[in-house]
Amino acid sequence: MRTALLQSSGHPGSTAANLKVLDAAAGRAAAAGAGILVTSEMFLTGYAIGDDVARLAEPADADAADADAADAIAEIAHQHGLAVAYGYPERSGDAVFNSVQLISADGARLANYRKTHLFGCFEREQFTPGEQPVVQAEVNGLRVGLMICYDVEFPENVRAHALAGTDLLLVPTAQMHPFQFVAESVVPVRAFENQMYVAYVNRVGAEGEFEFVGLSTLAGPDGVARARAGRGEELVFADADPGFLAASRAANPYLSDRRPALYGSLAV
Amino acid sequence: MRTALLQSSGHPGSTAANLKVLDAAAGRAAAAGAGILVTSEMFLTGYAIGDDVARLAEPADADAADADAADAIAEIAHQHGLAVAYGYPERSGDAVFNSVQLISADGARLANYRKTHLFGCFEREQFTPGEQPVVQAEVNGLRVGLMICYDVEFPENVRAHALAGTDLLLVPTAQMHPFQFVAESVVPVRAFENQMYVAYVNRVGAEGEFEFVGLSTLAGPDGVARARAGRGEELVFADADPGFLAASRAANPYLSDRRPALYGSLAV
Repeated sequence: MRTALLQSSGHPGSTAANLKVLDAAAGRAAAAGAGILVTSEMFLTGYAIGDDVARLAEPADADAADADAADAIAEIAHQHGLAVAYGYPERSGDAVFNSVQLISADGARLANYRKTHLFGCFEREQFTPGEQPVVQAEVNGLRVGLMICYDVEFPENVRAHALAGTDLLLVPTAQMHPFQFVAESVVPVRAFENQMYVAYVNRVGAEGEFEFVGLSTLAGPDGVARARAGRGEELVFADADPGFLAASRAANPYLSDRRPALYGSLAV
Repeated sequence: MRTALLQSSGHPGSTAANLKVLDAAAGRAAAAGAGILVTSEMFLTGYAIGDDVARLAEPADADAADADAADAIAEIAHQHGLAVAYGYPERSGDAVFNSVQLISADGARLANYRKTHLFGCFEREQFTPGEQPVVQAEVNGLRVGLMICYDVEFPENVRAHALAGTDLLLVPTAQMHPFQFVAESVVPVRAFENQMYVAYVNRVGAEGEFEFVGLSTLAGPDGVARARAGRGEELVFADADPGFLAASRAANPYLSDRRPALYGSLAV
């Protein structure tokens, strides 16, 4: 499945402007044959926008009266005929989660994931952590998993996805200087050690106190990056190939060679 | 602590010749100020030596009547005044383990680790797997952990060491073509994600059906390789700096940001 990585910070603070950016990218992605389009973390609203995070937060459910953006994105996905995974602040009662939602090419909500590992005081002040480690859905025959930024830096999280059968892990991110080692090295290692594809989609440029480093990538189960963006706004493509994945898994025994009885200390 | 990595295949099949190589390397390492010398996996006897593995296997305990090599290595360590971690086939009753033993600069046995994750049919036919995931000892104020080759490719194993406080993880290895991604990328990521030093010490050249790739490295908690050997026989040095490690850990919250309650699937 051709996967489109929208490396963009859009227009922080303006949901309407970001929906336009997303619509244009979806058109380009569909024209390039992509089956899915993935945005950066908090793409819908912007990441470092202070109190506007809570103000712009919406429910996950497009059927909710005040979920205008989810509804608009379902229309974008349906119109262009490709799935969309987008980062956004999710409101649920009094809580705000840092979430990513996956919408099908038919405009149906497939899955919604709430970031479980919040990064630093900045995120802990704004968000409630999620409690469900593995969220998945089927897209074009691939089992797609959802995760956000800091989550992927914990090997436990990606391993949990591997054990649950994730083929393609989507990771909207807001990865800032000086942590480019994560984009360059950690993400390819995660794909290799877990025998899956990992799509890591970053923001770019300056925003608030942060400088995002771009370098979005789709890494394969051989640890090789099939796409690698630079530091600016960019739409990049690469394929997640089920046949290649199956062959790689058949040759690589990492998951079957695990010895779970020796790993008890990790879960207490 | 200056750490010496003896990237060498020695003389497969000859324990006596390998003890001479080790003695010479210990002299050079001590002269360079090293506090510890680390060999490759199965350095004492050779790796791809067929039935000779079982024939040359010895007990871990230097006091045992037939542990001539352990006794000789204790003398080497004591004579040159540095700790030695060496890979060897360990006999215990009818079982043979793929082990690494750590001897102090006083010639005392500090720790012995039996490889828990055996690689492929080749190793499963020759060895019994170990059952103790974390083995450690103190050397010059650092908590040193022991692991062997394939073990380090499982993030769970290195994480268990991090949770147990390992500062410097020693990994004798026999890493063959085409898996150099492990030396080049996985090992630095392990050091980074677990905030420790990792010394990965490989064999070189052709042996039996294998072609070992060298590329031994000491990686730091910043993911940067402080030493990187080439493809041939080589003795390389780098420092494991407790001050740098403490500062890195103070700045990096990976271990405290873990959420063990979400990792249950890894241990069942």
